[in-house]
Amino acid sequence: MAGSAYDTDLDRNAANYTALSPLSLIRRAAAVYPDKPAVIHGDRRFTWAETYARSRRLASALSRRGIGKNDTVAVMAANVPALYEAHFGLPMAGAVLNAINTRLDAATIAFILDHGEARALLVDREFSGVAKQALALAKTRPLVVDIDDADIGDGEFLGEMEYEAFLGTGDPEFAWSPPDDEWNAIALNYTSGTTGNPKGVVYHHRGAYLLAIGNILTWNLPPHPTYLWTLPMFHCNGWCFPWTLAAVAGTSVCLRRVTAAGIFQAIHERGVSHFCGAPIVLNLAINAKPEERGPALPRTVEVMTAAAPPPAAVLQRMEQQGFHVTHVYGLTEVYGPATVCAWHEEWSLLPIEDQARLKSRQGVGYAVLEDLMVADPATLAPVPRDGATMGEVFMRGNTVMKGYFRNPKATDEAFAGGWFHTGDLGVMHPDGYIELKDRSKDIVISGGENISTIEIESTLYRHPAILEAAVVARPDEKWGETPCAFVTLKDGATASAAELIAFCRDNMAHFKCPRTVVFGPLPKTSTGKVRKYVLRERAIHL
Amino acid sequence: MAGSAYDTDLDRNAANYTALSPLSLIRRAAAVYPDKPAVIHGDRRFTWAETYARSRRLASALSRRGIGKNDTVAVMAANVPALYEAHFGLPMAGAVLNAINTRLDAATIAFILDHGEARALLVDREFSGVAKQALALAKTRPLVVDIDDADIGDGEFLGEMEYEAFLGTGDPEFAWSPPDDEWNAIALNYTSGTTGNPKGVVYHHRGAYLLAIGNILTWNLPPHPTYLWTLPMFHCNGWCFPWTLAAVAGTSVCLRRVTAAGIFQAIHERGVSHFCGAPIVLNLAINAKPEERGPALPRTVEVMTAAAPPPAAVLQRMEQQGFHVTHVYGLTEVYGPATVCAWHEEWSLLPIEDQARLKSRQGVGYAVLEDLMVADPATLAPVPRDGATMGEVFMRGNTVMKGYFRNPKATDEAFAGGWFHTGDLGVMHPDGYIELKDRSKDIVISGGENISTIEIESTLYRHPAILEAAVVARPDEKWGETPCAFVTLKDGATASAAELIAFCRDNMAHFKCPRTVVFGPLPKTSTGKVRKYVLRERAIHL
Repeated sequence: MAGSAYDTDLDRNAANYTALSPLSLIRRAAAVYPDKPAVIHGDRRFTWAETYARSRRLASALSRRGIGKNDTVAVMAANVPALYEAHFGLPMAGAVLNAINTRLDAATIAFILDHGEARALLVDREFSGVAKQALALAKTRPLVVDIDDADIGDGEFLGEMEYEAFLGTGDPEFAWSPPDDEWNAIALNYTSGTTGNPKGVVYHHRGAYLLAIGNILTWNLPPHPTYLWTLPMFHCNGWCFPWTLAAVAGTSVCLRRVTAAGIFQAIHERGVSHFCGAPIVLNLAINAKPEERGPALPRTVEVMTAAAPPPAAVLQRMEQQGFHVTHVYGLTEVYGPATVCAWHEEWSLLPIEDQARLKSRQGVGYAVLEDLMVADPATLAPVPRDGATMGEVFMRGNTVMKGYFRNPKATDEAFAGGWFHTGDLGVMHPDGYIELKDRSKDIVISGGENISTIEIESTLYRHPAILEAAVVARPDEKWGETPCAFVTLKDGATASAAELIAFCRDNMAHFKCPRTVVFGPLPKTSTGKVRKYVLRERAIHL
Repeated sequence: MAGSAYDTDLDRNAANYTALSPLSLIRRAAAVYPDKPAVIHGDRRFTWAETYARSRRLASALSRRGIGKNDTVAVMAANVPALYEAHFGLPMAGAVLNAINTRLDAATIAFILDHGEARALLVDREFSGVAKQALALAKTRPLVVDIDDADIGDGEFLGEMEYEAFLGTGDPEFAWSPPDDEWNAIALNYTSGTTGNPKGVVYHHRGAYLLAIGNILTWNLPPHPTYLWTLPMFHCNGWCFPWTLAAVAGTSVCLRRVTAAGIFQAIHERGVSHFCGAPIVLNLAINAKPEERGPALPRTVEVMTAAAPPPAAVLQRMEQQGFHVTHVYGLTEVYGPATVCAWHEEWSLLPIEDQARLKSRQGVGYAVLEDLMVADPATLAPVPRDGATMGEVFMRGNTVMKGYFRNPKATDEAFAGGWFHTGDLGVMHPDGYIELKDRSKDIVISGGENISTIEIESTLYRHPAILEAAVVARPDEKWGETPCAFVTLKDGATASAAELIAFCRDNMAHFKCPRTVVFGPLPKTSTGKVRKYVLRERAIHL
């Protein structure tokens, strides 16, 4: 209704409109809490004033090299201060942060550097070997800056300058500007697809700001938490937590290598109050040896977990050991976490097994996610809220990616019908909570029945000898497919295939039980997800 | 840089963009916590599912009367469920909520109805007398709906229908749409100017959403707080707390009349954990009689206060009695609170008087406010951070109003130079915290020296006999102006003018001390601000 008095002489101006951007959060942290610790890494310790100044130096140094708006800057690093600072310094220059998974092979990294058109690469000396190969394979010729670090053993220097020297070329008072549009790109994250080339997911300032705030709302994050970096920052920008921590002026405790001893040491010696991690990290914690663990936890430690639905047994053991687990779920395309199993206080009165069952659900949308549904992928008709009918999980809202970089076809497919297609399958419970039943490709269809591999895994985890379990479909002449379980036993524990199958038959419908059990370590991605496609290959050839 | 791959094929679409609006917050509260209490008023109790359904009924009923996008709907009501629901139901219909201060005179209300072009008026029966006069004076002929309530004594019915019957004409499943633009108006709030006609401040969905979230960040608001409505909802939309409470699925406890007994009863019987209020409300609490107070507080009660800087003595007594005070500052033009005296934990180790002095500062910008400065009003040059140089307080960001309704001249003046001019005077401390020294018009200029009336008031509050104090300028032939104090003594306390002046001379620079002291009750606005212009008039004629 143009012409309304509410739309007349009431336009945006410099006083009443600013682009939403996480950059405003670090400026405020540095202004209000300049002396509070922002980043701790071994003996190094930076306050918010220092982290802000270092980020401005980085922005300035890049600008002086002609790197600016919409230029991609790749970073290959462990969870070290340089990568944290890149989350601010790069966008202050207008550049786009492309944090690369450090465990990828050289050919994939070369593909990413070329596809992302990287103008610069900051590379942690720990990864200079693979980076060197990747640079040799890549067509692009980025400016290379090495990140040196006291806790790296050795590793070649590849670039013309070390990171600290590069910062030295920048101005700590650099007059950065907020983005001229909150839709501007802030980060580029390549998905670790199981087939084909990875796709580059583009985040914008608006979404990064909103998810940074959404994490606070979801986790009820207090001011000044001490946060341990168990989750790689290259994974969905650490679920946007670098920006979240600026919003609450929290302290980032870096951790180059995630070990049980390292986690417990950080809790005891650094005062860690919060960390995030895939179930593999939870497993590390609950299976820690007494000498790794040390004394009882000095306080409840808040843990946010995602990646794959944590088995009820794992959740239960975490809580018994003094961790409080918040279960979230998301994907690279939605900036990391997008749903949370929002807790109802009355659930805390239930038996702990029921609590664990409720908590293993993926739950409801983040407050900043507009909408979430489980629906028929063809018609987009929502499934009934019966906790049984399978459908695909769909999302929409401001924390859904801008799209795939230089890939309009994939973008259009992902957004077909006005919803983001997650590719994950689940059910909708009567209370509006979703529960994943499987990634699309992981489902086992046996004798016409859909079988959730997650359900089988959850059952296996309840067996006392099981450390880890992953189930995939194995081709079968009679049934089409049958479930095949790959399991790792705990140190010193023993169990036979027959025993585990019998245990499953005692605890779930017989048609769902694994027909095959294979023992041994599980292949995993760098973020702790089991590489099920590797297991599917193995299952074919059993 | 058009043509960048980051700006190509990566547009907004239904999957990845939604207008920011507080309406998304109530939808989520009703979906995730349908059975939790949303609003309690006497014996009436509505869950989030019910409040959502009632809001949809309201939207539907208005729509069926042809009231929709950009139509103003005025509400004159105490803090009752209908006004809470109006914060959601009106914008669901696309309408703009104009909550009117219930203590205004009929002529001013008539002006507001006409200037705001109200299409409907919901009126609480308590205020039907003045509303009837206003309607007689106004040119506009709105649809009138009466709000009846068990706790209203009497009062004429003015409209064609009572509110509950009106809701009955609406559909609880009404398919409302989010705003097509987050810049759309959501509320219209008239300032209670001291001279001339009130100005209509327009809020938009984006700002309302961000301040609703900003309140959570600022107050570290946990999920499901129980919030007592001591602050009028017609005051800057209750500082956006109706929307904040939807975001945290909290419970609103209504309170028609703010009394000490009512506050303590709600704390003891309703489990109230949080409330907001002007210093007058804090005064009520700390000066409550034992029989009003009841037993010791069952828990720390969080109090957010603003309006005028609370004297250190009041803050100190609140904390001693078990209230934890958060000090914010703002204006109608910035959706309510815009700054907060963000606390540093090390300050808690200081003597309580020092803590109170630090806490009486207005502090730093809300996380959602982009920028804040104290500057020369002519040049916009920031004052030095010396805690002494006076300047005007300026703000900018997304929680600054859209502008003044049908008043482009006032809008342009308010936003001159790309900053919102608050009209308030203050200093910037070396740590970046602002402290108000006076509203522009309240300053006393005596012998060429600027004297802060707030400083004098703070001193007076430290005298044991003082209940309330307000200082204004009194014209003086020799000095230009001298400070004139109006004071109210506590029940049973006595003090002479000479004694109070001597007390001031013992505690502050002599040139700043009041030359005149007048005893008696202070004239106040409906929101508890002292009407200093009335006192200035009186001071002239002393």
